[in-house]
Order: sequence, then C-alpha cells, then structure tokens
Amino acid sequence: MKPASLVPFATLAPVQQYLQATEEATIAWLEDYLRLPSVSANPAHASDMAATRGFLVERLKAMGLDDVQLLDGGGEAAVFGQWLGAPGRPTLLIYAHYDVQPPEPLELWRTPPFEPTTIGDHIYARGASDVKGATAIALAVVEAFLRVHQACPVNIKVFLEGEEEVGSRSLRALAERHRALLSADAVLSADGGRASAEVPTINTGARGNAQLEVRLRCAHKDLHSGRYGGAVRNALHEAARLVASLHCADGTVSVPGFFDGAVPPGEGARADTAAFPYDEDAFFADVGAAPHGEAGYSARERITLRPSLDVNGLYGGHTGAGGKTIVPCEAVIKLTIRVVPGQDPGQIIRAVAAHLHEQTPPGCTLEVTELHEGARAATLVPAHPLVRSAEAVLTRSMQRRPIHVRLGASVPITAIFKETLGIDTLMFGYNLPDEDVHAPNEFFRRSSIRDGMRDWSALLEQLSHFAPADFTIAMAEET
Amino acid sequence: MKPASLVPFATLAPVQQYLQATEEATIAWLEDYLRLPSVSANPAHASDMAATRGFLVERLKAMGLDDVQLLDGGGEAAVFGQWLGAPGRPTLLIYAHYDVQPPEPLELWRTPPFEPTTIGDHIYARGASDVKGATAIALAVVEAFLRVHQACPVNIKVFLEGEEEVGSRSLRALAERHRALLSADAVLSADGGRASAEVPTINTGARGNAQLEVRLRCAHKDLHSGRYGGAVRNALHEAARLVASLHCADGTVSVPGFFDGAVPPGEGARADTAAFPYDEDAFFADVGAAPHGEAGYSARERITLRPSLDVNGLYGGHTGAGGKTIVPCEAVIKLTIRVVPGQDPGQIIRAVAAHLHEQTPPGCTLEVTELHEGARAATLVPAHPLVRSAEAVLTRSMQRRPIHVRLGASVPITAIFKETLGIDTLMFGYNLPDEDVHAPNEFFRRSSIRDGMRDWSALLEQLSHFAPADFTIAMAEET
Repeated sequence: MKPASLVPFATLAPVQQYLQATEEATIAWLEDYLRLPSVSANPAHASDMAATRGFLVERLKAMGLDDVQLLDGGGEAAVFGQWLGAPGRPTLLIYAHYDVQPPEPLELWRTPPFEPTTIGDHIYARGASDVKGATAIALAVVEAFLRVHQACPVNIKVFLEGEEEVGSRSLRALAERHRALLSADAVLSADGGRASAEVPTINTGARGNAQLEVRLRCAHKDLHSGRYGGAVRNALHEAARLVASLHCADGTVSVPGFFDGAVPPGEGARADTAAFPYDEDAFFADVGAAPHGEAGYSARERITLRPSLDVNGLYGGHTGAGGKTIVPCEAVIKLTIRVVPGQDPGQIIRAVAAHLHEQTPPGCTLEVTELHEGARAATLVPAHPLVRSAEAVLTRSMQRRPIHVRLGASVPITAIFKETLGIDTLMFGYNLPDEDVHAPNEFFRRSSIRDGMRDWSALLEQLSHFAPADFTIAMAEET
Repeated sequence: MKPASLVPFATLAPVQQYLQATEEATIAWLEDYLRLPSVSANPAHASDMAATRGFLVERLKAMGLDDVQLLDGGGEAAVFGQWLGAPGRPTLLIYAHYDVQPPEPLELWRTPPFEPTTIGDHIYARGASDVKGATAIALAVVEAFLRVHQACPVNIKVFLEGEEEVGSRSLRALAERHRALLSADAVLSADGGRASAEVPTINTGARGNAQLEVRLRCAHKDLHSGRYGGAVRNALHEAARLVASLHCADGTVSVPGFFDGAVPPGEGARADTAAFPYDEDAFFADVGAAPHGEAGYSARERITLRPSLDVNGLYGGHTGAGGKTIVPCEAVIKLTIRVVPGQDPGQIIRAVAAHLHEQTPPGCTLEVTELHEGARAATLVPAHPLVRSAEAVLTRSMQRRPIHVRLGASVPITAIFKETLGIDTLMFGYNLPDEDVHAPNEFFRRSSIRDGMRDWSALLEQLSHFAPADFTIAMAEET
C-alpha cells in the first residue's frame, strides 16, 4: 500500500487549531441541533423531523458541501452532501443519524430532554450521546479542513439517516435507490461509541439484531374480573407465561434453535475481551443491576460475544393510576433479539416466533410482527485500512495501542452498507457507556467533543495515505 | 311479622303510571348525568367529580329530599339527602355511586364515552350500566312517590358514593363519621346487577376483594439492551416469572395459603347455581374468551363460589409505538384478589405478598401496595325482610319464583355497611352481564329502566309491611 501524500500529516496542526478556536461555536450549533425533538418512533414528531432535515441541509450547504439534498427511501428522508475535490484519493461516506429515541418517561428527566443543559463536562439532552454529539464532531472536522485548506484529505460524502432508532427500516431502499450517489470506499460512522475514555479501543464488530412485536389476544374485549375472573384465560397471565418461557432460570435463552449458527467466540476474541480493563462489579453497581445470564461466560462476553433476547416493553390491561377490576383481553410484548457472527437473524426470528406460537394456549391468538428487517452481526478484519488508520491515530493520540472490541449493541447500517454498497464501516463514535443513551438524562461530554475532533481530523488525514483499491479487503466473519 | 299498612299495595298504580308518563324525562336526566365524566381513578377529573356532586345535590333538592348535603370522609365526598316522613316505618338507605371507571382505551369506543348515544334499546356511555342507569331508576321512584302521594312507603336516605370504582377507600370513614345521619334498617343498593333479564334472581351474596399494586425494580434505570442485554436481570422477564408463578397450568391459583378459610360451596349454593339457566358455551363465545380455571367446578361456580386472582394491568419498558432497545428497570403489576365466605382478605393479601417476595430474585426489589382495604365476602340470609320483599316483588312482576344467586363481583359496601352501621344490604341493581361494564362501549337498556322502576316502586311498598325490628335478623355466612 503506497498512498500518495498530497496533504501530509503536518497540515493537521492548523486544522486542529481551527477546531480548538471554534469549539464554542461547534457546541452552540450542537445545542441548537439538540433542541430539535427528532423522535422517529412517534408520528407526532413528523414536523420536527422535517425541521431537523432543514436545519441539517442549511448546515451542509454552509460548510461548503456540494449537491446537498434529501434522499428519499420511502420513510424519513436522509440528508446528503459531498465534497469530491480529491481525485484519486479514497472516498469516505460519513454516516450518522439525526433521529433520537423517544424521551419517555419524561418524569424521570432532571432537565428538559430537548433543552440542552450543561453541568460541568456534561451536556444533558435526548440524543446528545446518541448521536448528535458525534455528528457535530464529524461535521466540524470536515468544515475545518475546508475552511483552513479549502480541501479535505479524502473525498467526503455525508449521509445522515432519519430512522436509526426505528431500525433503519428504509436504509436498504435508500442505499439501493441512491447507489451511485452513495458509492464510496468505506463508511466512517459517527455512531457506535467508545468502550472507555482512558483505554483506546477499535470497534471491530457488533451484534446484529431484530425486533418483534407480539400481540396476544384471549378475548374480544376486557372483561369484568368479578364476572369472569377465575373462569377465563387472562391475557396478562398468558403473556407472562410466554415471556417466562423465553429464558432458563439462569438467564440463558431457552428458545429451541436460538443459538443456531452462532460461531463460538474464538480465542482471539476472548483474549481481546479479557485484555480490556473492565470492572465487572462496577459495571453492575453503577446501574444497580443484578448480574444474570448464560453460564460459562463473563458479563462482557455475554454482552458482546453471545446472542441475547430481551423484552423491551410489555403492557396490557389497566396501566393508569389506581386499580381497574378487569380481566385484560390483550397483551403486547416488544422484544429485541441480538445475534452474533454466523447467525441469520431471519432464522432466529422464525425460531422465536415458532416457540411463542407453540406456547400460546388454546382459545388465544398470537400475532408476531417484525418491527424491521433483522441485521446480521458485523466484523471488520484487522488488516483493513479503516482498522490500520484508526490504530495509527489512537496509538498516537492516546499513547497506547488500541484493543479490538466488539459492540453488544447492533449497528444495522454496517450490514446494510456491506450488502448494498459492498463497503465496510468503521464505527468511530465518541460516546461512552455511562451516558444513559435510550434512557432519561442522556448526556454527552464536552471533553469527548475535543477528543473526537482531534482524532477525526487525524483519521481523515491518515486514510488519505491509502489508495481506494486498498479498501477492497474482504470483510470476514470472525471465527 | 305484622307490618302496619299505612300505604296499601294499591297506591302503587298511580305511582307506576307517573313513572311511565315521565319516563322520557327520567332518561333525559340520565343522559345529562352520563355527560359528566366522573372518573374517580384519574385526578385529572377532580373538577368533573365536583360538578357531578353539584348536579346530584340539585336533583336531590328538586325531588323533595331534606338535609341535602355533601358528606366528607377524607376522599371524594358523598352526596346525601333524606325523607323521614314515615315514623314507625323502616328506614332504607338507598345506595349508589356516582363515579365511573376510566373510559380508556378510548380508541375502542364506537361512540364518545361521555356523550350518551341511544341505539335501539341500548344507551351507550361510560357509567350507563355501572351504575348511573340504576341510580336514575331509584331516584325516579322516590320522586314519583313524593310527587303522587307527597310521601314514601318507607323512610328514605339517599347516599351516593364517589369512590366505588377506586375501592370505596373512604367509605368506612364516611360511615363512621356520619353514623347518625346514615343510620337505617337496611341498605338498598342500586349497584350489583341482575344475572338475567328473563329469570328473576336475588343476589344473596358477593365475593369480597382486595387490590394490590406490585412494583418490581431490577436496576436504577432503563439500560440499553445492546450494552446490558444478556448480562443483567430484566424487570419484565422477572415480572413475567412472578405473574406466571401465581397460577397452575390449569388456572388454579398456586399461591400457598390462597384458599385458606374458604368455606367449600354448600349443597344449597351449588344447587342454586345449577338451577340458574346458564349457557356456559354462550358465556365464553359471547366474549371470545377461552375457558380456563380450577378443576372440579363449573365456570359459574368458579366465578361466584370460589376465590380467584387476576392481574388487571401490567406494564414496563417501552409501551409506545415502535420499538425501543432497552432492558427495562421496572415493572408494575396490578392485581385483584376475590375472596369467598370464610376468608379474611387481609390474610390472603399477606399470603400473596409473601409469595411474591419469596419469588423475587436476588438483586431486585419488590414493593407491594394495597390499593384499598380489602372487603370480606357478603351473604344475606333467606329470611331477611330484604330477601322476602324482593321475592314477593319479583315473583309478582315476573310470574316465577326468583333463584338465589351470588355475585362474582365484589361490592365492598355490603361488608362496610354491616361493620359500621350494623345493617344488611340488598343489591337490587338492573344492569345485565353483557353490558360491558369496565370496558369500552358500556351500555344500559331502556327496557331495564322500565323494569327497574316497576320493581323498585313495588319493593319500597313491600318493605313498608315490615317493622324496623324485623331487619335485625343476623347476617350469616353461608356454609
């Protein structure tokens, strides 16, 4: 690999100085971005989603990108812009998502979820950590290169999705419909996160996932518990039996076929996991959670290297204040499946659905809906330019060699970009595990913005030393 | 028993003619009453509750009652008024409740819950059947006697409670605080309902009940299922195990001690139950429910003669649209216990709470709250003037001898009035089992208003043939 060196490493210094000098403006823009309640899961926020797209279009134009436009894939449109002024150099598709998780339960927020509030190093707001903060980093870095050098070290395509929090349901259609526009040598994702602020890590893979909604009906309508109680099936009793049937007493998933295809974690992966400084006691104590799960694996291995199944929501009957003497007719179960390399999410969904149908008692009906197409687990091989560049950057900035870690969380985009565009993704996000993503009081760190701008600028420079052909190294599943 | 006969049976005719002639006005008043959303379970309806009290105060005054006032027991006030112009005659406390169940889920109503809509014989509205319809009957009858004869056959105290749908939580305090004002020889309750429109029945008892809210916590906050899934206890998985542990596979309650004290149904009660013409297949088919429950008993016996335990509501995690990839930290379970004669509801609550605590896994916390004080099961003996009067009235109006039936539903007032005022209650409500009480599309029948006015007027007259002393016959629990 013999990259041309049109923009040598030394040019980084003025870019990084510019980033430092404009840090307050970057944070002010992030705060404006955080004020937009871009909740994709709730149709009531449709106009906020549109406003957020408008806000991003303005930004991409202002920072000097060309061809800024909305890309339609049948759902929430994506926001796109590009700079292609480095012919012969690699083209990087910078990925982030502008949608955020629902803020509920609102009563548990100590500050308003859509009014960013800075307390010390923390900026509290829904979406701060997932993933508007890292988006601000990536855009600031591209803008800094263009302002300082009127050029980037690599060609840039910015692609901001609007449906990541609802399973990227039209991302595949988007990528297929706009294949030419999105073509690139690799994806740099602002989503994904760091495992630790002290120990450099490179994300070399993620569990895949799938989400199901299960609707159990045991009668036409809610019934008075005094008039029917004790003589009919209660949808909540039966839903509880269904949920209880999903796991063994030790927490191992008990659905037949659930582990089918799962490649057992290799020595390399287990060694990397062990190398990562990780306080298991603190991991549980910090969130007050009770350890529980498959025997024979550490907590970190359970989360990153083994499949899992979690019920994310369950409801039925009276959920308001006080009591209501009914026999509920219906229960809804929402669940997420996490899969590891070797597993076909469609096959695992079918195994779970078959198990649930088999457990459904006579006289009751069960409806299983896939909330979105499942995504396979992803793996990035060590020799890939993305990994090598990240290693060089992090080794220099943190003065130690990064550990390869896998994510427990799923980033379906990795699999979708591989399947549709044929390219690999490096997750180079800057959030940290304690930032309450998907929960009340989500926050991002100002210090992470600083670290992120330093490393993203170096990474773009480092990638410029590779030729586009270097990126064709095959993505392989870990064995 | 040798009652004086100041107002002979014959005086009924002009009263009943008056009731027929004013039926449209009675229904118009009922419709106004149904427009008031008197939902006691939801604090957002506090002003509607107050407006409903004002509406009733006006009515009691207008119909000629004295001492009309609100009675405070620490919660929602009760509405009271009396007519004591028959010295030496029995005094009947007419009971109803002005509060209604929450209307949710709103999307399942075909007509607005608080805009009464008449379709054929049905008047659809929340509270139509439970129990504003029967309240309109009772008030119309008292008013008719006062308009036609300027006198009632018995002394009347009208007592309209505002907390029946939240477990009559301050009824005991109300009865104790206003013991002198409420003193009477017996209670006639507009609540309770008929088992059938064709077969005359007399309610001679009801199951007691208790309501619990159970809160299970397994972590300080909701956790990202990608970052914790597979390694921590999930509150919904554990809640499902708790709920699943409450019943055996056949539906019999499996909580140790749950059946303690329950007097096995006697031959008489089982014969009465068998005598009641009851289409068990239609009972289930009408509501699309799956038969399920304790072996050795018919469905009707399970509902009326055996204890039961139903989960009325269960929720945790994401309950909105779409998915949310969390490990929920908390689950809430709402449940109702139904007890039969011989059982102490406090003891059964303790048994259920102890079982739930024992089933709670390490690292999780469980909080069990009694939503209101439990009520014992009630039984009215056959020789009581209330039963004898009802038998005389129903035998005449329906041309067949009424069957004694027990209610599966609980009417805690029966136990509370017995304990605080020392008097028995006859449930003489006119709703029917198919009227979707506590569910969407609740309705009451116009024909039931007609039947009810005929029978309530005859019942007040019939009770006048007894002396107050006749009412002291002991309430006994069925054996």
